[in-house]
Amino acid sequence: MLDNIRVVLVRPKGSGNIGSVARAMKNTGVKDLVLVGGGRTESFMARAMAVHAEDILSQARRFDTIREAVADCALIVGTTCRDGLYRSHSELPRNVARDLVASVRGNPDKPAALLFGPEDHGLSNIDLKHCQRLLTIPSHPEYTSLNVAQAVMVCLYEIYMASLDEIEEETIERATAESVEALFDRMKKTLLGIGFLDPQNPEHILLGLRRILGRAGLEERDVRILSGIFRQIEWYTARGGREVAQEKRRRGIKLR
Amino acid sequence: MLDNIRVVLVRPKGSGNIGSVARAMKNTGVKDLVLVGGGRTESFMARAMAVHAEDILSQARRFDTIREAVADCALIVGTTCRDGLYRSHSELPRNVARDLVASVRGNPDKPAALLFGPEDHGLSNIDLKHCQRLLTIPSHPEYTSLNVAQAVMVCLYEIYMASLDEIEEETIERATAESVEALFDRMKKTLLGIGFLDPQNPEHILLGLRRILGRAGLEERDVRILSGIFRQIEWYTARGGREVAQEKRRRGIKLR
Repeated sequence: MLDNIRVVLVRPKGSGNIGSVARAMKNTGVKDLVLVGGGRTESFMARAMAVHAEDILSQARRFDTIREAVADCALIVGTTCRDGLYRSHSELPRNVARDLVASVRGNPDKPAALLFGPEDHGLSNIDLKHCQRLLTIPSHPEYTSLNVAQAVMVCLYEIYMASLDEIEEETIERATAESVEALFDRMKKTLLGIGFLDPQNPEHILLGLRRILGRAGLEERDVRILSGIFRQIEWYTARGGREVAQEKRRRGIKLR
Repeated sequence: MLDNIRVVLVRPKGSGNIGSVARAMKNTGVKDLVLVGGGRTESFMARAMAVHAEDILSQARRFDTIREAVADCALIVGTTCRDGLYRSHSELPRNVARDLVASVRGNPDKPAALLFGPEDHGLSNIDLKHCQRLLTIPSHPEYTSLNVAQAVMVCLYEIYMASLDEIEEETIERATAESVEALFDRMKKTLLGIGFLDPQNPEHILLGLRRILGRAGLEERDVRILSGIFRQIEWYTARGGREVAQEKRRRGIKLR
């Protein structure tokens, strides 16, 4: 079951930390390590900190983008130690862990991913747009930033604890990240087309939509319905555009 | 309140780990770091891993023995990743964390200590005899040994989480470790004197007694009662010894 939990390290810097993450994974029965945008798994420090988890290091996969790294996932959770815009609705590891376990139990063919940001600044707002849920490890206000491997340990510990509980499996059939991303691509194009999004800064509103739909936990049929709506908007406005053009031609108004 | 939680590293080897422990402490508002039997806090690796927790490193105290390190403590918890003799009754971090918080709330003048063993073998049975309670972090059977700093992180995370809860403070007035140790010294001497303990291996039975009384959570008045019993046994057997000697003299039996 925990085979279906993926740890995604985004732009990790210290290879010792990557080794420590591998060890924390093996300590909790989680095996799927993915690196996005770099990170060294072959260094002495990585291997030294991994100790008996070298297999996890050597099986780690690499992707250029988060989108590719989580394309097949049903649930994507981002970790953050900061508050701020786009970072409200952040939840406790204990609560998210239960939902992650329920998700992989109910969607055995679709992994759930936990994203951890680089050591210095954590996940950016752009990184977080891929996440349906946000998680913050409670910490003392004097020093809120945990070492990345320590953060992984706490999250996987909670997931392991939750996996020992009798958690009811989800009955919803979650959509994969890739089909949700395709939906957002369509939404963005359409909403730009009808002038709803500011072409200078389309992301602000889109992040709000991502957050709403992320919390909703989209199923494949939800994605089909929403895609259908936006396809219809495109068709209608395209037709409308043609009719306006015909009308303008009829009236002899010069087209731009 | 968390000022009263003490992290005791017993014979730590890696100074990077000591730095990581300091960071985990600062992340959770715990400040009292104690090293027993060595460990370098001044090295580059220690400072690098501590990041913004250098103050905890530089304020760390050193002791030669566990007994000295926890003399003023009311509750001492040992961590172990192994089962075995003397290691039954091991509990979940979540449960122990609540009791630790209750203890420091109810005994504000007496710290509670968490002991972590060396990286290679963990706490020995001799180390564990100082602990009233044992804690094991649940882990996957394939690799049960956590990095020591990761283990500290999980324990302090649970303590921090528990500290956010409304936990009722203990109403018992716990004895300090030192007064309990003095009791065990007296018990050992007396029980050897009356031939109850095997002089070749007195520790086996004593560890059993430590475990029972550790679980009981001794108060100062309990220590007074138990000390009184053993003082009385000493007095009685010494008197008995004198009387036997007198009786023997009376009968003209040669004394050994």
